Amino acid sequence: MIEPVLVPPPTRGRTSVARVVDDWYPVASSRALGRRPLGVTLLGSPLVLFRDDGGRPHALLDRCPHRNAPLSAGVRVGETIRCPYHGWRFDGKGECREVPGLVGEAPEHRGRRVPAFATREQDGLVWVWGQPDSVPAREPFRFPWIGERGYTTVRARLEVRASLHAVAENALDVPHTAFLHAGLFRRPDRPRQRLRVTVRRWHDRVEAEYTGEARPSGWLGRLLAPRGGVVEHWDRFFLPGIVQVEYRLGRAHLCVTAALSPVTDFHTRLFAAASFRLPWLPGWLVALVVRPIALRVFRQDAALLERQRAVVERFGGEHFVSTDLDVLGPAILHLLRDAERGHRGAIDRPVEKSVEMLV
Amino acid sequence: MIEPVLVPPPTRGRTSVARVVDDWYPVASSRALGRRPLGVTLLGSPLVLFRDDGGRPHALLDRCPHRNAPLSAGVRVGETIRCPYHGWRFDGKGECREVPGLVGEAPEHRGRRVPAFATREQDGLVWVWGQPDSVPAREPFRFPWIGERGYTTVRARLEVRASLHAVAENALDVPHTAFLHAGLFRRPDRPRQRLRVTVRRWHDRVEAEYTGEARPSGWLGRLLAPRGGVVEHWDRFFLPGIVQVEYRLGRAHLCVTAALSPVTDFHTRLFAAASFRLPWLPGWLVALVVRPIALRVFRQDAALLERQRAVVERFGGEHFVSTDLDVLGPAILHLLRDAERGHRGAIDRPVEKSVEMLV
Amino acid sequence: MIEPVLVPPPTRGRTSVARVVDDWYPVASSRALGRRPLGVTLLGSPLVLFRDDGGRPHALLDRCPHRNAPLSAGVRVGETIRCPYHGWRFDGKGECREVPGLVGEAPEHRGRRVPAFATREQDGLVWVWGQPDSVPAREPFRFPWIGERGYTTVRARLEVRASLHAVAENALDVPHTAFLHAGLFRRPDRPRQRLRVTVRRWHDRVEAEYTGEARPSGWLGRLLAPRGGVVEHWDRFFLPGIVQVEYRLGRAHLCVTAALSPVTDFHTRLFAAASFRLPWLPGWLVALVVRPIALRVFRQDAALLERQRAVVERFGGEHFVSTDLDVLGPAILHLLRDAERGHRGAIDRPVEKSVEMLV
Repeated sequence: MIEPVLVPPPTRGRTSVARVVDDWYPVASSRALGRRPLGVTLLGSPLVLFRDDGGRPHALLDRCPHRNAPLSAGVRVGETIRCPYHGWRFDGKGECREVPGLVGEAPEHRGRRVPAFATREQDGLVWVWGQPDSVPAREPFRFPWIGERGYTTVRARLEVRASLHAVAENALDVPHTAFLHAGLFRRPDRPRQRLRVTVRRWHDRVEAEYTGEARPSGWLGRLLAPRGGVVEHWDRFFLPGIVQVEYRLGRAHLCVTAALSPVTDFHTRLFAAASFRLPWLPGWLVALVVRPIALRVFRQDAALLERQRAVVERFGGEHFVSTDLDVLGPAILHLLRDAERGHRGAIDRPVEKSVEMLV
Repeated sequence: MIEPVLVPPPTRGRTSVARVVDDWYPVASSRALGRRPLGVTLLGSPLVLFRDDGGRPHALLDRCPHRNAPLSAGVRVGETIRCPYHGWRFDGKGECREVPGLVGEAPEHRGRRVPAFATREQDGLVWVWGQPDSVPAREPFRFPWIGERGYTTVRARLEVRASLHAVAENALDVPHTAFLHAGLFRRPDRPRQRLRVTVRRWHDRVEAEYTGEARPSGWLGRLLAPRGGVVEHWDRFFLPGIVQVEYRLGRAHLCVTAALSPVTDFHTRLFAAASFRLPWLPGWLVALVVRPIALRVFRQDAALLERQRAVVERFGGEHFVSTDLDVLGPAILHLLRDAERGHRGAIDRPVEKSVEMLV
Repeated sequence: MIEPVLVPPPTRGRTSVARVVDDWYPVASSRALGRRPLGVTLLGSPLVLFRDDGGRPHALLDRCPHRNAPLSAGVRVGETIRCPYHGWRFDGKGECREVPGLVGEAPEHRGRRVPAFATREQDGLVWVWGQPDSVPAREPFRFPWIGERGYTTVRARLEVRASLHAVAENALDVPHTAFLHAGLFRRPDRPRQRLRVTVRRWHDRVEAEYTGEARPSGWLGRLLAPRGGVVEHWDRFFLPGIVQVEYRLGRAHLCVTAALSPVTDFHTRLFAAASFRLPWLPGWLVALVVRPIALRVFRQDAALLERQRAVVERFGGEHFVSTDLDVLGPAILHLLRDAERGHRGAIDRPVEKSVEMLV
């Protein structure tokens, strides 16, 4: 019997790690997968990606069934990938198509199959279904606004040594911005505005809507809305790991979406796209200014998340206490834990609650 | 429930590691703790040290109860320390004093407390009681001779990757000096003097007194007593980790005291002070000569102890056999093991025994 | 009680690691062991080698019984080795011969013994019996052809981070050469020759004889037999870890023998000797040409084996499937597993089977 994913480490039960295997994750950008096979890791499992003659991507467990050499060190031959050790070849379904030198026997054989993962290529990313030899139950998330008239999109691939849950919570958390990103967004010295936050939870996503928020102070705020105004602001999480922050301020519109991919329990890869429309400024100019600022914010978050993980590791687990200000983190964990056990419920009406916070 | 110290590793039962938590350990020099919080480790637990407005040092577990960010990456604000992630503030007793943005609720809350460790500042060191949220049962050890008339004191902070017991035994061991420090103290080629060693053990300390010892040969001996003479020599250990070597030779007097601080089971930090009176030489000159020699001796000991630890690690435990020459090591382990279980006994008469050795 | 070897890691049962302790392994070349003690590792156990006054090599467990310092950091004194810490001395049988400073007691004592391993010096190598304090049941393997008239021998010491079994299987495997060493031996594009392989298994060795093989294409083939011809070719494994590849082609004769030494479960050291006779070429010239090619082949194998080990490690064990082309690997594992349990059988007739392959 071949196990599809690796053995869970012992920290799992004491942390916010959840392993949702029956869903799609991006594992590489379309550009990164060329003519040569590419080794990636998803949910701790090493996978090899390769394109067939028609350019269609395939994903197999990155282990030759013969002597366990990594197929990603091999080469593509026609519609197959060839192991670097003894030259065994496998097609995109994981079927063995050649055992060089073998006499009087077909190469196809049950014991020589490699677990194969369903793939999609969409929004410039290669997506893989988290379980091998399964028929996907849905299609991957679509990034909105990419390519829409008047919109500019900036992309980035980022890495954090922290759990998917910790990254998602951080990405959609408002209160930390005044401290961790002091000066860029909000000021730590005195909270000024009282905001109302409405949280809506569906069976597969959760959203926080902020109302009453004035134009944020600091750099980014001035850039978004030179003339001030009232912000419309939503933070959203979609299973299994999509985070989205959307701002509207008059005619200005910004939507940052990132698909989080769990490389391992404490290593998350982000495929992010920021789409925006600022009618009074050329998109390329905004991109030029916003990109370094966004990367600086990201680096501050990543550094903090890695410190958080180091503390959690040192203590052998998390000891978290939440308040009303943690509007999305606990809800996201709830969605992930349910999805990990295969519970997603049907399409439903959102459960709604509302809290106040000072920002 | 918040656990105060970290999970013990499996090697504990097979090694001389003992974890005496109900006592004082120095964790930093007074100078090292300035305006910024300082992260240190004691008995495997990460602590954050910070001074309040009055300059008094405080020690908390280095983990924010909210999302487990390290408080040592934060800043001091008045009498509190502020978490770098969401800005929660804690006072020196571990009480939460602010949750920025929280509406309609006091920040003080049982679940938001951080374990706090009693502190003292004494002899230029910041001392911490090994257990959080406890009332110290005694006061820290006082270094003798510092600041006394006619005495010069040289200080050093040193690190060894070995257990507190291994470091203490090594520091107070005589027979190894002829081999590990050949040329500096004694010669390996032929033992010459027969010494009598009297060992006295109390409930919280043990002492070895050497009689019949002529002035040591080699560099250090000539410096201590240019005209020869008979040495008075004591080696002492005090719980939980003070080692002391005292020499008297005519009017010359040398007392080296080091407080050993268990960073982790196999990493010990030494805060050492050598106080001496050599009436015929200016103190600064002696310090100038003795310091590099003492550091060389220390480096030889540290290198050997790290090799010893590597062997013990490789074999998964210690396999020691002792002889009469190991006058203090087994007695120190006995004291540590008893203290680890909370047994120290009352003030008592020393248990005395006597052995002979050739040095 | 002193344990002779280290604790097995948990991967053992799920991998091809076998620990045959009742046999000889080379641990160093004769030249590498000079006047200073030499620390080596065999089957995970740290050993110290030293020569006595007469130049005879001795091997002890590299751990002083007193305080577990490594004896390999000490010095040789006459027929003994002296510990660097307290100067305890041990002879080649592991007997304690001096405890410096001890009064009124002989140094020899049961608890002060160091486990001693039988040694041999043969074929330019120092061999050690895998179990301490045992009488060897046989003598080490002898390398053939070294020093024979008309033969030239080239030697190498090599390292691979892979198990002894993986290295042995790889060294004696034919089908991989067309892929991993494409261009050097055979071509991957089209298998051409159909060979018959006769496999003979004895109680302590296994041999594969290849018949019908034409002169190999590629560099090495042209060098071995400029005029073509039919190759005689044997691959052999002898317990506990000798691999041998022998080619005869007309008057040309090549025999490569390597003794594999298990440093740890997944680290194997090879002491290899290639002896050859090519009547029409001077030996030194052949050596000059063959050596870099052989090292290149070895590096390709070593790199693949380390990748294989990394995959096995990541999955927590091996998942191998074999075909008829794996003529020796499974048989070698069978021999190793039996020998690990102490079963070698008596001298017997070989079990013979025959398969066909395309190369």
